[in-house]
Amino acid sequence: MSSIDKTNGGVAFPLGFRASGVEAHVKYPERKDFALIVADGPATCAGVFTTNAIAAAPVRLDRERVKGGVLRAVAINTGFANACTGAQGEADAAEMARIVASELSVPAEQVAVCSTGVIGVTLPMDRIAVGARLAAAALSREGSADAACAIMTTDTVPKMAAYVLTLPDGRTIRFGAMSKGAGMIEPYMATMLGFVTTDAVVSAADLDEAVREAASVSFNRIVIDNDRSTNDTLMLLASGASGVAIDRSSPVWLDFKEAVKTICLDLAKQMVMDGEGVSKFVTLSVTGAADDAEAERAARSIARSMLVKTSWYGRDPNWGRVIAAAGYSGARVEEPKVRISYGDVVAFDHGRVVADAASLEAMKKIMSERAFTVSVDLGLGSGSCTIYTSDLTHQYVTINADYTT
Amino acid sequence: MSSIDKTNGGVAFPLGFRASGVEAHVKYPERKDFALIVADGPATCAGVFTTNAIAAAPVRLDRERVKGGVLRAVAINTGFANACTGAQGEADAAEMARIVASELSVPAEQVAVCSTGVIGVTLPMDRIAVGARLAAAALSREGSADAACAIMTTDTVPKMAAYVLTLPDGRTIRFGAMSKGAGMIEPYMATMLGFVTTDAVVSAADLDEAVREAASVSFNRIVIDNDRSTNDTLMLLASGASGVAIDRSSPVWLDFKEAVKTICLDLAKQMVMDGEGVSKFVTLSVTGAADDAEAERAARSIARSMLVKTSWYGRDPNWGRVIAAAGYSGARVEEPKVRISYGDVVAFDHGRVVADAASLEAMKKIMSERAFTVSVDLGLGSGSCTIYTSDLTHQYVTINADYTT
Repeated sequence: MSSIDKTNGGVAFPLGFRASGVEAHVKYPERKDFALIVADGPATCAGVFTTNAIAAAPVRLDRERVKGGVLRAVAINTGFANACTGAQGEADAAEMARIVASELSVPAEQVAVCSTGVIGVTLPMDRIAVGARLAAAALSREGSADAACAIMTTDTVPKMAAYVLTLPDGRTIRFGAMSKGAGMIEPYMATMLGFVTTDAVVSAADLDEAVREAASVSFNRIVIDNDRSTNDTLMLLASGASGVAIDRSSPVWLDFKEAVKTICLDLAKQMVMDGEGVSKFVTLSVTGAADDAEAERAARSIARSMLVKTSWYGRDPNWGRVIAAAGYSGARVEEPKVRISYGDVVAFDHGRVVADAASLEAMKKIMSERAFTVSVDLGLGSGSCTIYTSDLTHQYVTINADYTT
Repeated sequence: MSSIDKTNGGVAFPLGFRASGVEAHVKYPERKDFALIVADGPATCAGVFTTNAIAAAPVRLDRERVKGGVLRAVAINTGFANACTGAQGEADAAEMARIVASELSVPAEQVAVCSTGVIGVTLPMDRIAVGARLAAAALSREGSADAACAIMTTDTVPKMAAYVLTLPDGRTIRFGAMSKGAGMIEPYMATMLGFVTTDAVVSAADLDEAVREAASVSFNRIVIDNDRSTNDTLMLLASGASGVAIDRSSPVWLDFKEAVKTICLDLAKQMVMDGEGVSKFVTLSVTGAADDAEAERAARSIARSMLVKTSWYGRDPNWGRVIAAAGYSGARVEEPKVRISYGDVVAFDHGRVVADAASLEAMKKIMSERAFTVSVDLGLGSGSCTIYTSDLTHQYVTINADYTT
């Protein structure tokens, strides 16, 4: 029986990785805005990227490079997204990788690059070059936190995690991760960058299976607003430095995948908690749907509803908005079979309003917490889906009305 | 050549109709909250209703009654939506119609009822009875404004319109209308009630064609938030009192339908302008899509994007959010072919950012107006769609976080 244990650290926690985050003044002075994750040798890799038809130049570059199955380094800048920047943007992304490769003395085609920030502005390549030089010089086994800070945009806290997977025979595999993203956070990979490292020995093809499955139940299960960005990226790199080899046929393959899911879900929840203007973290559970796909449809519809999200902000157990959002989701919903609860208090049960004054008070109290659960049982079948989501607040509007092109 | 001219008035402007709006204290004191539209004789009718799987009791009742093709009266209460109220709700809706029919001495099955307000609370039938009595006594040819006021919920202004269609032979047909709705306003008929009257002689089957076509280019082309309500209703009633008979084979049939579209679009725009917390009325025009359906998909995606809507609020020509929302819409979008303009100022053209400091200033000036146009040319084909939409403001959050169950 394997065990998965949380510990302290980030992307450089697994053996064989170093990281750094430095002030390159890409857009703003006095903040870290350039990060590096570097493997001591060739690391196997896999990644999932935005589904937006408008994909940023670095995303287009990385999609190709990840297909190669081997990376030595990932460089990330904030400030500008290098999206909608045409041929110049493509050239800049490739040049950014080349500069980093040169600083690290590794092959350019084994360097991935990520950019996040404002769309439509070309990268200031002189600052990128400064960032690459400083970040290469700052690389260390202790650089995880600096790297996590350097990739923040409107994030208010750095997001990182570290886990140890202990196999039944006592051998251990380390996992580290960091991510950023607070707005444009919708399922399907929204302006988020996520990086997971491990020191297991795993093929790129097997990593691909692990990262896709992990994304589908973590980053693709969170909703803050309803936008999907042009730059979303989740990469999984394996250094092999632990010497523990795993593949699809290993008895512990499921445990390995579970560890990747665990660390991704940890980061995904951190992202919702730090979402733009978020004051409530809501675990939205839809059960009893005709099938899982219908449960997901209903859950996403509820999680995206501005009326539902503002009611959460207002601590108002307005289950009517919840059932209305399920009703227009396209999923099968029959009013006489629906049950809606806030925490463990039932508001609506099989076509009847069951909330009285006491339970209304109880629900309001539950909704006063920073985190609570909303459960919707459609009473039709065994389909289920859990989404991690947030409220819609004045602060969200303030942040996004002021964020400037 | 027919002409369509705007004039003053509302639902009782066409001959053969009377209206009223009274204080029944359904939920709140000191506001009109019960309205009647009454035809002097049997009026032909047609209607379109919410597509939400959770439909309110009055909607389920009206769907059946409209199939009969003849109505004498429509009664509307605000305060409570009579949605998610189970068997009691169904009985109450039928009873509300029966009470009104009794006051008017007309057949109960020729009375439609509409409710709007909070979901999940049964109607206070004693107040409904008071409303029916007072409203029946107050009916008059001058009651349009009172009726329009009585159906408001979070609306800040009553919404009504009147038009005269003058046929080539000089005969005239009158059209009157009123509507309500400010939140839950999304395509597909969101908490909106709309009523259009005319004094033409038209069959119910022909009215059905007219009302469906009109809804598709008016009420179904507006987006405030992304919710669809359980109570949406648009009804078209024809008294026949003008004596002007029209049917599908008439040379002026298209003119008749155009007049219905015109009055519906007039109301739809009034609703966006008065949307919850709306500070900007945005005409969003998507052209050059592969086909009309793709244009609509891209337009709805942009109009629903919280990031786009907050940028409009902030007077920020953040075209990057616009193209990103088009990109994840599912419509075909190719970055090197896209052109985005604010008013007549181009921000992004065929893969290039063309906004300089002067044009940025010009765009901000345009966005400081109460109403402006955002145009997105996808450069792929001849598909187009226009959506009337709004920004997302602090006030929207305030209204919906405070509106209580």
